Amino acid sequence: MERELTNRQFKEIRALIERGNTRKKTGLFTGEGERFFEEIPKELIEKVVVSRSFLEKHPQTDAFVLEDDAYRKLCDTKNPQGIMAVIKKPETASDDIVSLAAADGTAVVLEGLQDPGNLGTIIRTAEAAGVNCVVMDKNTVDIFSPKVVRSTMGSIFRVPFIYTEDLKDLLLQLKEKGVTLYAADLGGEDMKRVTLEKKRAFIIGNEGAGLSKEISDFCDTKIRIPMKGKIDSLNAAVAAALLMYME
Amino acid sequence: MERELTNRQFKEIRALIERGNTRKKTGLFTGEGERFFEEIPKELIEKVVVSRSFLEKHPQTDAFVLEDDAYRKLCDTKNPQGIMAVIKKPETASDDIVSLAAADGTAVVLEGLQDPGNLGTIIRTAEAAGVNCVVMDKNTVDIFSPKVVRSTMGSIFRVPFIYTEDLKDLLLQLKEKGVTLYAADLGGEDMKRVTLEKKRAFIIGNEGAGLSKEISDFCDTKIRIPMKGKIDSLNAAVAAALLMYME
Repeated sequence: MERELTNRQFKEIRALIERGNTRKKTGLFTGEGERFFEEIPKELIEKVVVSRSFLEKHPQTDAFVLEDDAYRKLCDTKNPQGIMAVIKKPETASDDIVSLAAADGTAVVLEGLQDPGNLGTIIRTAEAAGVNCVVMDKNTVDIFSPKVVRSTMGSIFRVPFIYTEDLKDLLLQLKEKGVTLYAADLGGEDMKRVTLEKKRAFIIGNEGAGLSKEISDFCDTKIRIPMKGKIDSLNAAVAAALLMYME
Repeated sequence: MERELTNRQFKEIRALIERGNTRKKTGLFTGEGERFFEEIPKELIEKVVVSRSFLEKHPQTDAFVLEDDAYRKLCDTKNPQGIMAVIKKPETASDDIVSLAAADGTAVVLEGLQDPGNLGTIIRTAEAAGVNCVVMDKNTVDIFSPKVVRSTMGSIFRVPFIYTEDLKDLLLQLKEKGVTLYAADLGGEDMKRVTLEKKRAFIIGNEGAGLSKEISDFCDTKIRIPMKGKIDSLNAAVAAALLMYME
Protein backbone atom coordinates (compact mmCIF):
# COMPACT_ATOMS: atom_id res chain seq x y z
CA MET A 1 0.00 0.00 0.00
CA GLU A 2 1.89 3.03 -1.25
CA ARG A 3 1.51 6.48 0.29
CA GLU A 4 3.56 9.59 -0.25
CA LEU A 5 5.25 11.09 2.79
CA THR A 6 3.94 14.64 3.15
CA ASN A 7 6.23 17.59 3.55
CA ARG A 8 4.99 18.04 7.09
CA GLN A 9 5.72 14.42 8.00
CA PHE A 10 9.18 14.83 6.45
CA LYS A 11 9.87 17.77 8.72
CA GLU A 12 8.59 15.92 11.78
CA ILE A 13 10.95 13.03 11.11
CA ARG A 14 13.88 15.40 10.51
CA ALA A 15 13.15 16.97 13.90
CA LEU A 16 13.23 13.50 15.52
CA ILE A 17 16.60 12.84 13.91
CA GLU A 18 18.12 16.18 14.82
CA ARG A 19 16.64 17.15 18.15
CA GLY A 20 16.72 15.38 21.47
CA ASN A 21 13.99 17.71 22.70
CA THR A 22 11.59 16.61 19.97
CA ARG A 23 12.34 12.97 20.80
CA LYS A 24 11.62 13.76 24.44
CA LYS A 25 8.32 15.53 23.76
CA THR A 26 6.97 12.95 21.34
CA GLY A 27 8.39 9.79 22.93
CA LEU A 28 9.52 8.76 19.45
CA PHE A 29 12.86 8.15 17.74
CA THR A 30 14.12 6.81 14.43
CA GLY A 31 16.20 3.94 13.14
CA GLU A 32 17.53 3.32 9.65
CA GLY A 33 18.68 0.21 7.81
CA GLU A 34 17.29 -3.13 6.76
CA ARG A 35 18.97 -5.24 9.39
CA PHE A 36 18.14 -2.80 12.15
CA PHE A 37 14.51 -2.77 11.01
CA GLU A 38 14.29 -6.50 11.64
CA GLU A 39 15.26 -5.96 15.28
CA ILE A 40 12.43 -3.55 16.09
CA PRO A 41 9.57 -5.10 18.10
CA LYS A 42 6.52 -4.72 15.83
CA GLU A 43 4.38 -3.07 18.55
CA LEU A 44 6.87 -0.19 18.79
CA ILE A 45 6.74 0.72 15.09
CA GLU A 46 4.84 3.95 14.53
CA LYS A 47 5.61 4.58 10.87
CA VAL A 48 7.79 3.12 8.10
CA VAL A 49 9.39 5.18 5.34
CA VAL A 50 11.17 3.69 2.34
CA SER A 51 12.98 4.99 -0.71
CA ARG A 52 11.54 4.39 -4.19
CA SER A 53 14.36 1.91 -5.02
CA PHE A 54 13.80 0.00 -1.80
CA LEU A 55 10.09 -0.30 -2.56
CA GLU A 56 10.84 -1.57 -6.07
CA LYS A 57 13.00 -4.33 -4.59
CA HIS A 58 10.53 -5.07 -1.78
CA PRO A 59 7.11 -4.25 -3.27
CA GLN A 60 5.26 -5.83 -0.34
CA THR A 61 6.48 -3.23 2.15
CA ASP A 62 3.63 -1.32 3.79
CA ALA A 63 5.23 2.09 4.04
CA PHE A 64 5.36 5.73 3.12
CA VAL A 65 7.53 6.22 0.07
CA LEU A 66 10.02 8.94 -0.84
CA GLU A 67 11.95 9.43 -4.06
CA ASP A 68 15.59 8.37 -3.57
CA ASP A 69 16.94 11.92 -3.43
CA ALA A 70 14.44 13.01 -0.83
CA TYR A 71 15.05 9.83 1.15
CA ARG A 72 18.76 10.57 1.24
CA LYS A 73 18.00 14.06 2.51
CA LEU A 74 15.74 12.61 5.18
CA CYS A 75 18.39 10.20 6.47
CA ASP A 76 21.46 12.33 6.33
CA THR A 77 23.71 9.28 6.77
CA LYS A 78 26.55 8.14 4.54
CA ASN A 79 25.05 4.96 3.19
CA PRO A 80 21.29 4.98 3.64
CA GLN A 81 19.79 1.56 3.13
CA GLY A 82 16.36 2.69 2.05
CA ILE A 83 14.17 1.81 5.04
CA MET A 84 13.56 3.90 8.13
CA ALA A 85 11.17 3.52 11.03
CA VAL A 86 9.69 5.98 13.47
CA ILE A 87 9.69 4.04 16.73
CA LYS A 88 8.06 4.40 20.14
CA LYS A 89 10.69 4.60 22.86
CA PRO A 90 10.99 1.38 24.83
CA GLU A 91 10.42 2.12 28.49
CA THR A 92 11.51 0.45 31.67
CA ALA A 93 10.09 1.73 34.95
CA SER A 94 12.46 2.95 37.63
CA ASP A 95 11.30 0.31 40.13
CA ASP A 96 11.82 -2.45 37.57
CA ILE A 97 15.36 -1.25 36.92
CA VAL A 98 16.15 -1.32 40.64
CA SER A 99 14.76 -4.88 40.88
CA LEU A 100 16.75 -5.96 37.84
CA ALA A 101 19.93 -4.38 39.12
CA ALA A 102 19.43 -6.00 42.51
CA ALA A 103 19.24 -9.51 41.04
CA ASP A 104 22.34 -11.69 40.93
CA GLY A 105 24.71 -10.55 38.22
CA THR A 106 25.93 -7.29 36.77
CA ALA A 107 24.42 -3.85 36.29
CA VAL A 108 26.18 -1.02 34.46
CA VAL A 109 25.87 2.61 35.52
CA LEU A 110 27.11 5.47 33.34
CA GLU A 111 27.85 9.02 34.49
CA GLY A 112 28.23 11.73 31.84
CA LEU A 113 29.25 9.47 28.96
CA GLN A 114 29.43 11.70 25.88
CA ASP A 115 30.39 9.75 22.77
CA PRO A 116 27.41 8.27 20.89
CA GLY A 117 29.47 5.41 19.43
CA ASN A 118 30.74 4.50 22.89
CA LEU A 119 27.25 4.40 24.38
CA GLY A 120 25.90 2.28 21.53
CA THR A 121 28.81 -0.13 21.81
CA ILE A 122 28.32 -0.38 25.59
CA ILE A 123 24.63 -1.29 25.14
CA ARG A 124 25.57 -3.90 22.51
CA THR A 125 28.29 -5.36 24.73
CA ALA A 126 25.96 -5.31 27.74
CA GLU A 127 23.58 -7.63 25.93
CA ALA A 128 26.42 -9.94 24.89
CA ALA A 129 27.80 -10.04 28.44
CA GLY A 130 24.35 -10.77 29.88
CA VAL A 131 24.20 -7.59 31.92
CA ASN A 132 20.93 -7.11 33.85
CA CYS A 133 20.38 -3.44 32.98
CA VAL A 134 22.05 -0.11 32.24
CA VAL A 135 21.48 3.06 34.25
CA MET A 136 22.50 6.46 32.85
CA ASP A 137 22.62 9.82 34.56
CA LYS A 138 20.95 12.79 32.84
CA ASN A 139 24.31 14.08 31.54
CA THR A 140 24.89 10.96 29.47
CA VAL A 141 24.37 11.36 25.72
CA ASP A 142 20.83 10.61 24.44
CA ILE A 143 20.53 6.87 23.75
CA PHE A 144 17.83 7.66 21.14
CA SER A 145 20.10 9.80 18.96
CA PRO A 146 20.64 8.17 15.56
CA LYS A 147 24.35 7.40 16.05
CA VAL A 148 23.78 5.63 19.35
CA VAL A 149 20.77 3.75 18.02
CA ARG A 150 22.79 2.53 15.02
CA SER A 151 25.75 1.32 17.04
CA THR A 152 23.58 -0.65 19.48
CA MET A 153 22.85 -3.01 16.56
CA GLY A 154 19.36 -3.64 17.95
CA SER A 155 20.40 -4.19 21.58
CA ILE A 156 18.53 -0.99 22.46
CA PHE A 157 15.34 -3.12 22.33
CA ARG A 158 16.68 -5.93 24.48
CA VAL A 159 18.76 -4.34 27.24
CA PRO A 160 16.62 -2.68 29.94
CA PHE A 161 17.84 0.84 30.63
CA ILE A 162 16.83 4.05 32.35
CA TYR A 163 17.89 7.68 32.66
CA THR A 164 17.85 8.89 36.22
CA GLU A 165 17.57 12.48 37.42
CA ASP A 166 19.26 11.62 40.69
CA LEU A 167 22.09 9.16 40.22
CA LYS A 168 23.19 9.14 43.83
CA ASP A 169 19.72 8.32 45.07
CA LEU A 170 19.48 5.42 42.65
CA LEU A 171 22.88 4.13 43.75
CA LEU A 172 21.71 4.37 47.35
CA GLN A 173 18.69 2.21 46.50
CA LEU A 174 21.03 -0.37 44.95
CA LYS A 175 23.25 -0.34 48.03
CA GLU A 176 20.25 -0.90 50.26
CA LYS A 177 19.33 -3.93 48.18
CA GLY A 178 22.76 -5.45 48.73
CA VAL A 179 24.37 -4.52 45.42
CA THR A 180 28.11 -3.85 45.66
CA LEU A 181 29.10 -0.72 43.74
CA TYR A 182 32.42 -0.88 41.88
CA ALA A 183 33.69 2.50 40.64
CA ALA A 184 35.96 2.45 37.58
CA ASP A 185 38.69 4.67 38.96
CA LEU A 186 42.34 5.04 37.90
CA GLY A 187 43.27 5.18 41.58
CA GLY A 188 41.47 1.93 42.39
CA GLU A 189 42.60 -1.61 42.98
CA ASP A 190 43.78 -3.75 40.05
CA MET A 191 40.72 -5.60 38.72
CA LYS A 192 42.75 -8.77 38.50
CA ARG A 193 43.04 -8.78 42.28
CA VAL A 194 39.36 -8.11 42.91
CA THR A 195 36.88 -10.90 43.60
CA LEU A 196 33.47 -9.72 42.52
CA GLU A 197 30.39 -9.97 44.70
CA LYS A 198 27.37 -11.79 43.32
CA LYS A 199 25.24 -8.65 43.07
CA ARG A 200 27.33 -5.92 41.54
CA ALA A 201 27.22 -2.72 39.55
CA PHE A 202 30.07 -1.10 37.64
CA ILE A 203 29.98 2.69 37.69
CA ILE A 204 31.75 4.23 34.69
CA GLY A 205 32.40 7.92 34.06
CA ASN A 206 32.93 10.43 31.30
CA GLU A 207 35.52 9.77 28.55
CA GLY A 208 37.79 12.64 29.50
CA ALA A 209 37.10 13.32 33.13
CA GLY A 210 36.17 9.90 34.52
CA LEU A 211 33.72 9.64 37.41
CA SER A 212 32.89 12.62 39.59
CA LYS A 213 34.60 12.42 42.96
CA GLU A 214 31.24 12.44 44.70
CA ILE A 215 29.99 9.36 42.88
CA SER A 216 33.30 7.52 43.00
CA ASP A 217 33.59 8.07 46.75
CA PHE A 218 30.02 6.88 47.25
CA CYS A 219 30.85 3.47 45.76
CA ASP A 220 31.98 0.50 47.85
CA THR A 221 35.17 -0.32 45.96
CA LYS A 222 37.29 1.46 43.38
CA ILE A 223 38.80 -0.74 40.70
CA ARG A 224 41.09 -0.02 37.79
CA ILE A 225 42.00 -1.86 34.65
CA PRO A 226 45.79 -2.39 34.61
CA MET A 227 47.49 -0.37 31.86
CA LYS A 228 51.03 -0.59 30.53
CA GLY A 229 52.97 1.84 28.36
CA LYS A 230 52.33 5.57 28.47
CA ILE A 231 48.56 5.09 28.36
CA ASP A 232 46.54 6.77 31.08
CA SER A 233 43.07 5.74 29.97
CA LEU A 234 41.23 3.32 27.75
CA ASN A 235 38.38 4.00 25.36
CA ALA A 236 35.22 4.06 27.51
CA ALA A 237 33.50 1.25 25.60
CA VAL A 238 36.62 -0.91 25.87
CA ALA A 239 36.90 -0.25 29.61
CA ALA A 240 33.21 -1.04 30.11
CA ALA A 241 33.57 -4.28 28.13
CA LEU A 242 36.56 -5.46 30.18
CA LEU A 243 34.61 -4.87 33.38
CA MET A 244 31.38 -6.47 32.11
CA TYR A 245 33.30 -9.58 31.05
CA MET A 246 35.15 -9.87 34.40
CA GLU A 247 34.66 -13.21 36.10
CA MET B 1 59.80 32.51 14.47
CA GLU B 2 56.70 33.17 12.43
CA ARG B 3 56.28 32.09 8.81
CA GLU B 4 53.22 32.08 6.63
CA LEU B 5 52.15 28.73 5.21
CA THR B 6 52.18 29.06 1.41
CA ASN B 7 49.23 28.05 -0.71
CA ARG B 8 51.27 25.22 -2.13
CA GLN B 9 52.17 23.90 1.31
CA PHE B 10 48.49 24.16 2.27
CA LYS B 11 47.56 21.96 -0.69
CA GLU B 12 50.29 19.45 0.12
CA ILE B 13 49.00 19.06 3.66
CA ARG B 14 45.39 18.75 2.46
CA ALA B 15 46.55 15.94 0.17
CA LEU B 16 48.18 14.18 3.15
CA ILE B 17 44.94 14.46 5.10
CA GLU B 18 42.71 13.29 2.28
CA ARG B 19 44.71 10.75 0.33
CA GLY B 20 46.29 7.51 1.43
CA ASN B 21 48.26 7.48 -1.81
CA THR B 22 49.92 10.80 -1.04
CA ARG B 23 50.79 9.53 2.45
CA LYS B 24 52.28 6.42 0.84
CA LYS B 25 54.37 8.32 -1.73
CA THR B 26 55.73 10.90 0.71
CA GLY B 27 56.08 8.74 3.81
CA LEU B 28 54.35 11.52 5.74
CA PHE B 29 51.09 11.90 7.64
CA THR B 30 49.41 14.50 9.88
CA GLY B 31 48.19 14.78 13.43
CA GLU B 32 46.15 17.55 15.04
CA GLY B 33 45.66 18.68 18.62
CA GLU B 34 47.73 19.95 21.50
CA ARG B 35 47.79 16.79 23.55
CA PHE B 36 48.53 14.63 20.51
CA PHE B 37 51.36 16.97 19.56
CA GLU B 38 53.09 16.24 22.88
CA GLU B 39 53.15 12.54 22.02
CA ILE B 40 55.07 12.92 18.75
CA PRO B 41 58.75 11.95 18.95
CA LYS B 42 60.63 15.16 18.05
CA GLU B 43 62.75 13.47 15.37
CA LEU B 44 59.62 12.55 13.42
CA ILE B 45 58.26 16.09 13.17
CA GLU B 46 58.64 17.48 9.65
CA LYS B 47 56.59 20.65 9.97
CA VAL B 48 54.34 22.38 12.50
CA VAL B 49 51.34 24.53 11.54
CA VAL B 50 49.36 26.62 14.01
CA SER B 51 46.35 28.91 13.89
CA ARG B 52 46.76 32.61 14.65
CA SER B 53 44.88 32.26 17.97
CA PHE B 54 47.04 29.34 19.02
CA LEU B 55 50.19 31.34 18.30
CA GLU B 56 48.90 34.26 20.34
CA LYS B 57 48.42 31.94 23.31
CA HIS B 58 51.73 30.15 22.73
CA PRO B 59 54.00 32.80 21.18
CA GLN B 60 57.12 30.63 21.56
CA THR B 61 55.89 28.02 19.07
CA ASP B 62 58.24 27.61 16.12
CA ALA B 63 55.70 27.01 13.38
CA PHE B 64 54.02 28.05 10.18
CA VAL B 65 51.00 30.16 10.93
CA LEU B 66 47.56 30.32 9.32
CA GLU B 67 44.68 32.66 10.03
CA ASP B 68 41.98 30.87 12.05
CA ASP B 69 39.59 30.48 9.12
CA ALA B 70 42.24 28.99 6.88
CA TYR B 71 43.42 26.73 9.68
CA ARG B 72 39.90 25.38 10.13
CA LYS B 73 39.75 24.67 6.40
CA LEU B 74 43.08 22.89 6.59
CA CYS B 75 41.99 20.60 9.43
CA ASP B 76 38.48 19.76 8.41
CA THR B 77 37.69 18.39 11.90
CA LYS B 78 34.89 19.43 14.20
CA ASN B 79 36.91 21.01 16.96
CA PRO B 80 40.37 21.93 15.70
CA GLN B 81 42.73 22.74 18.54
CA GLY B 82 45.05 25.00 16.60
CA ILE B 83 48.22 22.93 16.22
CA MET B 84 48.98 20.38 13.52
CA ALA B 85 52.13 18.49 12.63
CA VAL B 86 53.32 16.90 9.44
CA ILE B 87 55.01 13.73 10.67
CA LYS B 88 57.40 11.14 9.24
CA LYS B 89 55.82 7.69 9.40
CA PRO B 90 57.30 5.55 12.16
CA GLU B 91 58.67 2.36 10.64
CA THR B 92 59.28 -1.09 11.99
CA ALA B 93 61.14 -3.57 9.75
CA SER B 94 59.43 -6.85 8.90
CA ASP B 95 62.17 -8.92 10.57
CA ASP B 96 61.88 -6.88 13.75
CA ILE B 97 58.13 -7.45 13.86
CA VAL B 98 58.61 -11.20 13.51
CA SER B 99 61.14 -11.15 16.36
CA LEU B 100 58.84 -9.06 18.53
CA ALA B 101 55.86 -11.30 17.80
CA ALA B 102 57.94 -14.38 18.57
CA ALA B 103 58.88 -13.12 22.04
CA ASP B 104 56.87 -14.24 25.06
CA GLY B 105 53.54 -12.46 25.21
CA THR B 106 50.86 -11.36 22.80
CA ALA B 107 50.83 -10.19 19.19
CA VAL B 108 47.72 -8.93 17.42
CA VAL B 109 47.05 -9.61 13.74
CA LEU B 110 44.27 -7.83 11.84
CA GLU B 111 42.73 -8.96 8.55
CA GLY B 112 40.64 -6.47 6.60
CA LEU B 113 39.63 -4.27 9.52
CA GLN B 114 37.72 -1.32 8.02
CA ASP B 115 36.59 1.14 10.69
CA PRO B 116 39.15 3.88 11.48
CA GLY B 117 37.89 4.33 15.04
CA ASN B 118 38.15 0.60 15.69
CA LEU B 119 41.74 0.44 14.44
CA GLY B 120 42.79 3.44 16.50
CA THR B 121 41.16 2.02 19.61
CA ILE B 122 42.85 -1.34 19.04
CA ILE B 123 46.29 0.32 18.82
CA ARG B 124 45.57 2.28 22.01
CA THR B 125 44.35 -0.83 23.83
CA ALA B 126 47.34 -2.81 22.53
CA GLU B 127 49.71 -0.43 24.30
CA ALA B 128 47.69 -0.59 27.51
CA ALA B 129 47.59 -4.39 27.40
CA GLY B 130 51.35 -4.57 26.76
CA VAL B 131 50.98 -6.25 23.38
CA ASN B 132 54.31 -6.87 21.58
CA CYS B 133 53.24 -5.66 18.14
CA VAL B 134 50.36 -5.34 15.68
CA VAL B 135 50.37 -6.84 12.18
CA MET B 136 47.85 -5.69 9.57
CA ASP B 137 47.09 -7.12 6.16
CA LYS B 138 46.99 -4.78 3.18
CA ASN B 139 43.18 -4.67 3.24
CA THR B 140 43.11 -3.12 6.69
CA VAL B 141 42.27 0.60 6.80
CA ASP B 142 45.26 2.99 6.64
CA ILE B 143 46.63 3.54 10.14
CA PHE B 144 47.92 6.96 9.04
CA SER B 145 44.48 8.33 8.12
CA PRO B 146 43.52 11.23 10.42
CA LYS B 147 40.66 9.42 12.18
CA VAL B 148 42.81 6.44 13.09
CA VAL B 149 45.72 8.62 14.17
CA ARG B 150 43.43 10.64 16.45
CA SER B 151 41.86 7.64 18.12
CA THR B 152 45.24 6.02 18.88
CA MET B 153 45.81 8.87 21.38
CA GLY B 154 49.55 8.75 20.63
CA SER B 155 49.95 4.97 20.83
CA ILE B 156 50.76 4.98 17.11
CA PHE B 157 54.27 6.10 18.14
CA ARG B 158 54.74 3.45 20.81
CA VAL B 159 53.19 0.24 19.49
CA PRO B 160 55.35 -1.44 16.80
CA PHE B 161 53.24 -2.31 13.76
CA ILE B 162 53.55 -3.36 10.15
CA TYR B 163 51.41 -3.81 7.04
CA THR B 164 52.14 -7.07 5.27
CA GLU B 165 51.50 -7.88 1.62
CA ASP B 166 51.34 -11.60 2.38
CA LEU B 167 49.56 -12.28 5.65
CA LYS B 168 49.71 -16.06 5.35
CA ASP B 169 53.45 -16.04 4.82
CA LEU B 170 53.94 -13.87 7.88
CA LEU B 171 51.71 -16.15 9.96
CA LEU B 172 53.79 -19.11 8.72
CA GLN B 173 56.95 -17.38 9.97
CA LEU B 174 55.32 -16.90 13.37
CA LYS B 175 54.28 -20.56 13.49
CA GLU B 176 57.84 -21.62 12.69
CA LYS B 177 59.07 -19.55 15.62
CA GLY B 178 56.73 -21.33 17.99
CA VAL B 179 53.95 -18.75 18.20
CA THR B 180 50.49 -20.25 18.70
CA LEU B 181 47.93 -18.62 16.43
CA TYR B 182 44.47 -18.05 17.93
CA ALA B 183 41.79 -17.16 15.38
CA ALA B 184 38.85 -15.10 16.66
CA ASP B 185 36.08 -17.22 15.19
CA LEU B 186 32.41 -17.49 16.13
CA GLY B 187 32.67 -21.25 15.65
CA GLY B 188 35.65 -21.57 17.99
CA GLU B 189 36.06 -22.72 21.56
CA ASP B 190 34.86 -20.51 24.43
CA MET B 191 37.81 -18.28 25.45
CA LYS B 192 37.06 -18.97 29.10
CA ARG B 193 37.97 -22.63 28.53
CA VAL B 194 41.19 -21.89 26.63
CA THR B 195 44.58 -21.83 28.36
CA LEU B 196 46.84 -19.54 26.40
CA GLU B 197 50.33 -20.51 25.30
CA LYS B 198 53.22 -18.26 26.32
CA LYS B 199 53.89 -17.07 22.76
CA ARG B 200 50.63 -16.24 21.13
CA ALA B 201 48.99 -14.18 18.44
CA PHE B 202 45.31 -13.27 18.16
CA ILE B 203 44.08 -13.07 14.59
CA ILE B 204 41.03 -10.81 14.20
CA GLY B 205 38.99 -10.25 11.05
CA ASN B 206 36.78 -7.70 9.37
CA GLU B 207 33.87 -6.07 11.25
CA GLY B 208 31.15 -7.58 9.09
CA ALA B 209 32.65 -10.70 7.61
CA GLY B 210 35.09 -11.86 10.28
CA LEU B 211 38.25 -13.74 9.27
CA SER B 212 38.61 -15.29 5.84
CA LYS B 213 38.21 -19.06 5.98
CA GLU B 214 41.73 -19.50 4.63
CA ILE B 215 43.35 -17.53 7.45
CA SER B 216 41.09 -18.92 10.16
CA ASP B 217 41.82 -22.50 9.07
CA PHE B 218 45.54 -21.78 8.99
CA CYS B 219 45.55 -20.88 12.69
CA ASP B 220 46.23 -23.41 15.47
CA THR B 221 43.11 -22.80 17.54
CA LYS B 222 39.81 -21.04 16.99
CA ILE B 223 38.42 -19.18 19.98
CA ARG B 224 35.24 -17.25 20.53
CA ILE B 225 34.10 -14.72 23.06
CA PRO B 226 30.93 -16.04 24.74
CA MET B 227 27.85 -13.96 23.87
CA LYS B 228 24.39 -13.97 25.40
CA GLY B 229 21.14 -12.46 24.10
CA LYS B 230 20.45 -12.12 20.41
CA ILE B 231 23.92 -10.71 19.71
CA ASP B 232 25.94 -12.46 17.03
CA SER B 233 29.04 -10.28 17.11
CA LEU B 234 30.82 -7.69 19.20
CA ASN B 235 32.35 -4.43 18.10
CA ALA B 236 35.79 -5.31 16.68
CA ALA B 237 37.71 -3.09 19.11
CA VAL B 238 35.80 -4.57 22.05
CA ALA B 239 36.48 -8.12 20.86
CA ALA B 240 40.17 -7.34 20.37
CA ALA B 241 40.37 -5.80 23.86
CA LEU B 242 38.77 -8.82 25.54
CA LEU B 243 41.30 -11.10 23.82
CA MET B 244 44.31 -8.88 24.54
CA TYR B 245 43.40 -8.76 28.23
CA MET B 246 42.91 -12.53 28.49
CA GLU B 247 45.07 -14.14 31.10
